[in-house]
Amino acid sequence: MESNTRKYLAEFFGTMLLVAVGTGAVVLVGVQTGPLPVALAFGIALAAGAYAFGPISGGHFNPAVSLGAAMNGRISWKDFTGYVIAQLIGGLAGSAVVWAIMKGVGASATMIKQVGFGQTDYTTPVSFFGATVIELILTFFFVLVILMVTSKKAEASSVAAPMIIGLTLAVLIIVGISVTGSSLNPARSFGPAVFFAMFGSATSLTHVAAYFIGPLVGGALAALVAKYGLGSEE
Amino acid sequence: MESNTRKYLAEFFGTMLLVAVGTGAVVLVGVQTGPLPVALAFGIALAAGAYAFGPISGGHFNPAVSLGAAMNGRISWKDFTGYVIAQLIGGLAGSAVVWAIMKGVGASATMIKQVGFGQTDYTTPVSFFGATVIELILTFFFVLVILMVTSKKAEASSVAAPMIIGLTLAVLIIVGISVTGSSLNPARSFGPAVFFAMFGSATSLTHVAAYFIGPLVGGALAALVAKYGLGSEE
Amino acid sequence: MESNTRKYLAEFFGTMLLVAVGTGAVVLVGVQTGPLPVALAFGIALAAGAYAFGPISGGHFNPAVSLGAAMNGRISWKDFTGYVIAQLIGGLAGSAVVWAIMKGVGASATMIKQVGFGQTDYTTPVSFFGATVIELILTFFFVLVILMVTSKKAEASSVAAPMIIGLTLAVLIIVGISVTGSSLNPARSFGPAVFFAMFGSATSLTHVAAYFIGPLVGGALAALVAKYGLGSEE
Amino acid sequence: MESNTRKYLAEFFGTMLLVAVGTGAVVLVGVQTGPLPVALAFGIALAAGAYAFGPISGGHFNPAVSLGAAMNGRISWKDFTGYVIAQLIGGLAGSAVVWAIMKGVGASATMIKQVGFGQTDYTTPVSFFGATVIELILTFFFVLVILMVTSKKAEASSVAAPMIIGLTLAVLIIVGISVTGSSLNPARSFGPAVFFAMFGSATSLTHVAAYFIGPLVGGALAALVAKYGLGSEE
Repeated sequence: MESNTRKYLAEFFGTMLLVAVGTGAVVLVGVQTGPLPVALAFGIALAAGAYAFGPISGGHFNPAVSLGAAMNGRISWKDFTGYVIAQLIGGLAGSAVVWAIMKGVGASATMIKQVGFGQTDYTTPVSFFGATVIELILTFFFVLVILMVTSKKAEASSVAAPMIIGLTLAVLIIVGISVTGSSLNPARSFGPAVFFAMFGSATSLTHVAAYFIGPLVGGALAALVAKYGLGSEE
Repeated sequence: MESNTRKYLAEFFGTMLLVAVGTGAVVLVGVQTGPLPVALAFGIALAAGAYAFGPISGGHFNPAVSLGAAMNGRISWKDFTGYVIAQLIGGLAGSAVVWAIMKGVGASATMIKQVGFGQTDYTTPVSFFGATVIELILTFFFVLVILMVTSKKAEASSVAAPMIIGLTLAVLIIVGISVTGSSLNPARSFGPAVFFAMFGSATSLTHVAAYFIGPLVGGALAALVAKYGLGSEE
Repeated sequence: MESNTRKYLAEFFGTMLLVAVGTGAVVLVGVQTGPLPVALAFGIALAAGAYAFGPISGGHFNPAVSLGAAMNGRISWKDFTGYVIAQLIGGLAGSAVVWAIMKGVGASATMIKQVGFGQTDYTTPVSFFGATVIELILTFFFVLVILMVTSKKAEASSVAAPMIIGLTLAVLIIVGISVTGSSLNPARSFGPAVFFAMFGSATSLTHVAAYFIGPLVGGALAALVAKYGLGSEE
Repeated sequence: MESNTRKYLAEFFGTMLLVAVGTGAVVLVGVQTGPLPVALAFGIALAAGAYAFGPISGGHFNPAVSLGAAMNGRISWKDFTGYVIAQLIGGLAGSAVVWAIMKGVGASATMIKQVGFGQTDYTTPVSFFGATVIELILTFFFVLVILMVTSKKAEASSVAAPMIIGLTLAVLIIVGISVTGSSLNPARSFGPAVFFAMFGSATSLTHVAAYFIGPLVGGALAALVAKYGLGSEE
C-alpha cells in the first residue's frame, strides 16, 4: 500500500478509536461517579492509538496537533491536509460506532436523540468567547506537552511519550469537562456534532465553531512557544 | 520442561489471574462507585500477566487474541489450539479462585448463587444480535491495538505494550460494562458461566454464544485490518 | 556505608513509605468513594519505593516477597533475615508517621484509638482459616507476578517492573479489601497492629497470625511455581 | 536563546501547568467524588511537565525539590535562585489561568472569591505546627523518592522517573488532602494565595508560612537522607 495512504489510514483508525471510546464513555457512563471514567477513556484511547498507529503516522488524531506539527516542520503541509481529512472522517466513524452500540442496546431513535453522541457544547453563562478561550488554553497546554515530549531533546522518554500524552489529555479533561466538555480537538467535536444533527438536535454552528477555533489557535500558540521559547526543534 | 508445555502453562496462569482478579472485583466490589475498580482490575491483571508470562507465551490469555495472532502468522495453528485449551482451563481456575474466596468469606451456596461469579450476560432490550455486535466492535478495537503495538514497527514501545494493552481493555470495559459486561474474551466468559451453572443458575447457552462469536469475529476482523490495511506483518 | 547496611536501610525506607502512604490513606480517606484511593495509595507507594530504593535492595518491602526471593536464590538467607527485620521496623515507622499525622491533625488519643492505624483484621463470618486462605491466594498471585516480571526472561520489561508490581498490588487490594483488608504483607500488618495495641485496642494475636501465615505460604508457593513450573530462574 | 533563560522558562511553564491543572481541578471538580481526580490532576500534570520540560531544566517546578537538588550538588545555587523565581512566577501564572477559566465560565468576582483558587489552608484543630509537620513529612517522602529515582544508581528507570514522581505526588495528596490540602510545594501554595488575596480573602500569612517551611525543611531532610543514608550521589 502506498505509504501516504497508510499514514492517513492510521490517523483514521486512531481518531475513530479515540472518539468511539471517549464519547462512548460519555454516552454510556457519564460523570455521575466523577470525571475519571470519561477522562481516562479519552486519555487511554489516545495513548493506545498513539502506541498502535503512531509508528506509522505519528499518532495525532487531532487537527490542532497536526497544525502544531506542521507549523514546526514535523509533517508537510500536504500531509497536514490529508491528516485532517482522515481525522474528520475518523471522528465520524467513531460516532458511527457509538450509534451502532446504542442500536445494539436496543435504543430507539428518540432515545438516541435524547442521550446524544457525547457532543461538546456549552450553555449560558459560558459565552462563545469564554468557551473558545477555555478550549484555547487547555489545548495550548496539551499541544505544548506533545511537542516537547516528542522533541529530539526528549528522546529518552520516547517510550513513555504516548502514555503521558494520553494522560495529559485525561487531566485537562478533568479540569474542563464541566465547562466546555473539554474537546481540545476539532475532530472529536465534529463527528458527534454531525451525528447529533442527523437526529434532529443540531448544536448551533456558532457553538461548534468554538471547538474548531479554540483548539486550532491554542495548538498554533503552543507550536510557537515550543519552537521559539523552548527550542523544541533544535 | 518441554517448551510448549511451559507456554501453555503461562497462558493458563495468565488467564487464571485475569479472571480471578477481574471477576473477583465484579463479585466483591461491583460498579456502585463507578466502573473504574472493575475496569482497572481486569486491565491491570491483564497487563501484569502479560509482563509476567508474556516473555514465555506472548501473553494472550484470550482466544480472540490468539485467533488474531494465528491468522497473522505470529503463532502456529497448533499453538492456537493449545493456547485456547489452556485459556479455557485458566478461566475455570480463575472462577475456582473466586469460589474459594467466597468460601473464605463464609458465604453459603445460596449466597454464592445469588452473587454469582461475575459471569457476562445481557438482558432485554439487548438482543443476541446486539450483544454479539457490541462484543465484536469492542474486541475489534482491542485486538487491533494489540496486533499493532506488538508489531515489528512498534518495537520502540515494546516495554510499554503490556501496560497499554491492559489499559485499553480497561477503557473498553468502561464503555461496554453496563451493556454486555464487556467480556471481549471467550475464556473470561467461559469459566464464570460454567461455575454459575454448577450452582444451578445457568446462563442460557445462546447468551454465552454471543461472548464467543462476537469476540472471535472481532478479533479476526482486526487481524485482517492490521495485516492488509496497516501492514502490521511487514 | 557498608553495603548490607544500606540494603537494609533501603528496605526500611521503602516499607515505611508503603505503610505510611497506604495505611495513611486507609485512615484519612477510607473506601466510602470506592476502593481505588486506598488501593492506588498502596500500589503506587510500592512502585515509588521500588523505583527509588529497588536499585539498592531489590525493593521487596514485604517478608513474603523476600521469602520467595530467598527460596529462588535471588537473595541470601542472611539477607532474608536482615530484610525482614528492616521491613518490620519499617512497618512500625510507617505507623509512627500515621500517628504523627493524626497528632498534627489535632486528634486526641481517644480519637486515634477509634480511627485506628489502618490495621488489617477480619470479622465473622470470615474465619481464621478463611482469612488465611484468602491472604494466601492473593499473595500467591502477587509474588508470582513479582518473580516473573523480575526474572531474566523478562529483562525487556525491567523498566516497567516496579510499576506493574505496584499496580498488581493495587488490583489485588481492590479484590480483597472488603474481606481481609488485603494485606499480602506481614510487615504491612505488623506495624499498625503494634500501634493499635499501644492504644489499647489490640487485634487478637490469632487474627494477626493470619496475615503472617497466609502471605508467607502464598509467597512460598509462588516461588515453587515460578521456579519449577515456569522456569523463572533458568 | 541563552541556556539559563531556557531552563528558567522550562521551570516557569512546568509550574504553570502544574498549578493550572491541579488547582483548576480543585476549583472545578473538588473532592466530592473522592480525592482521585484532584490527586491525579496534580500528579499527571507534574509528570507531563517533567517529561516535556525536564530534559531542559530537570523538571522541578517546586522550590523544595530544587532545594534538595541544590544541596546534593545536582544544580548550582545560582540556578536554585533562578529556578525558585521562575517557579513562583509560574505558580502565579497557573492561578492566572484558573482565573481566566473562571472568567470564561462567566463567574462574577464574588463567585470567584467564594470558589477561590484552590489555595491551601488548614483550620482548627490543625495548628500551625501540625500543618507544618504534616507538610514536612509528606514532602520528605516526595523529595526522597525524587532524589533516588533520578540518582545515577537508578539509571535503568530513568524513562519511568517522571511518571513515578508524578504518581507519588498523587498518592501523597490522597493522604493529606483532607488535612492541609497537601501542597508539598511553596510555589503551588504561593500563586493561589496571591490571587485569593487579590480578591480580598487573604489567607493569613502565618498559615501560608506553613506551606513554605514544611516543604522546604522536608526537602532538605530528604536530601540529607538520600546522600548520607542511601548514597544517592555516589
